[in-house]
Amino acid sequence: MKRIKLTVAYDGTNYHGWQVQPNGITIEGVLNQAITALTGEPAAVIGASRTDAGVHALGNIAVFDTNTKIPPEKLSYALNQYLPEDIVVQHSCEVPSAFHPRRCESRKTYVYKILNRTFPLPLNRRDCYFTYRKLDVGQMRQAAGYLVGTHDFQSFCSVHSQAETTVRTIYHLAVEKEQDLLTIQVTGSGFLYNMVRILAGTLLQVGMGERSPAEIPDILKARNRSAAGPTAPAHGLTMIGISYNILENI
Amino acid sequence: MKRIKLTVAYDGTNYHGWQVQPNGITIEGVLNQAITALTGEPAAVIGASRTDAGVHALGNIAVFDTNTKIPPEKLSYALNQYLPEDIVVQHSCEVPSAFHPRRCESRKTYVYKILNRTFPLPLNRRDCYFTYRKLDVGQMRQAAGYLVGTHDFQSFCSVHSQAETTVRTIYHLAVEKEQDLLTIQVTGSGFLYNMVRILAGTLLQVGMGERSPAEIPDILKARNRSAAGPTAPAHGLTMIGISYNILENI
Repeated sequence: MKRIKLTVAYDGTNYHGWQVQPNGITIEGVLNQAITALTGEPAAVIGASRTDAGVHALGNIAVFDTNTKIPPEKLSYALNQYLPEDIVVQHSCEVPSAFHPRRCESRKTYVYKILNRTFPLPLNRRDCYFTYRKLDVGQMRQAAGYLVGTHDFQSFCSVHSQAETTVRTIYHLAVEKEQDLLTIQVTGSGFLYNMVRILAGTLLQVGMGERSPAEIPDILKARNRSAAGPTAPAHGLTMIGISYNILENI
Repeated sequence: MKRIKLTVAYDGTNYHGWQVQPNGITIEGVLNQAITALTGEPAAVIGASRTDAGVHALGNIAVFDTNTKIPPEKLSYALNQYLPEDIVVQHSCEVPSAFHPRRCESRKTYVYKILNRTFPLPLNRRDCYFTYRKLDVGQMRQAAGYLVGTHDFQSFCSVHSQAETTVRTIYHLAVEKEQDLLTIQVTGSGFLYNMVRILAGTLLQVGMGERSPAEIPDILKARNRSAAGPTAPAHGLTMIGISYNILENI
């Protein structure tokens, strides 16, 4: 029995998120079906980031165990034959059987994309949040500066969260603008439920002049979801990738 | 009666191209319906570039005549209320009644996008042609150099064309690569039927090493469609924009 790690890209538009659920098609469910169709074995992938409905990925991680004779590096090619065009395995390899994508120390990177112009662009509608309101990138960057580091992010966590602790570390939080595309890219030790979308929603308020950057320390201190801004819409969010300390040392 | 010029962006994925036809929904048809719904007048837009099925646009041009009291600059906002999310008017203004978007001298710019990596990316599947085959950008640029200028492009014209002359001028033809996204951007005085897609298909053959750049002058000389490469798939092509000499002088 081998443990296989998959790097998976998907357009989340047509899925009810990552996690298998009674109603609606999910990324996890479709991956399990493809593995079973290929290997003939029952399959239950473990995902690193259980993304919400409508959220996309370039490099989410999933592991599963298999007895297949197909070489681990070839599983990506083989599985893609059984996957729809909006889910594509980008890489496959064997990992130690103890490797668990949510329990091993990691750095996750997400990007939230905002199209900021007079009218929306049809080709960007699936993976960019659109606003015609003028955004002050300088103010957003100042606000971002207060969020970097190790903080209690309870104010940036949806109340439904079951996390044991709400302390997380943000290593990097960049607000960039290229023409009319604004991106918020964040790398952290892990994120609470809806945390990146609430960060984005709060930074958007700052960009629109509805809040000042100096309010961020108070929002953090409040440890109360209602202190932060709204949860930005899911479709602007893309999970970029995850790196694991344990795998880099092998 | 005023003549209105619209700048229109669309995701061509779900349309049977620009031009109204008996079977299938077209960009032109949907625009006409929206104008009629807004103004109560019969509408017949004249398009600058009658793009093929699956081709996209950031700035295609359409004109129509109307007696509406809505100020020309506000028609973009008003029409977008009647348009689906994959067709969005970006700009509207009044133009001289003699202005015809296909009969006035213009420069048109198209981009052909190629995603060049081991596996396709779901979020790019609608507007990028995918190939895993290694592309030599240097060779493609050399080939592009032979195509710039005024030439008889009959070899790069689908046999269905009804054009009176097959001589066209390419002002600019750039092959750029940024990470795994390769773009072919071309600006010309006008393009023959399928010309940009045949240029892209031929440059792709050069990039793959199937032809040498030095063959391009012979392909031009042949004045025969079979001398050039294949017509690259429609979904990689986006009409970027059109500028008119006559409108710049007003």
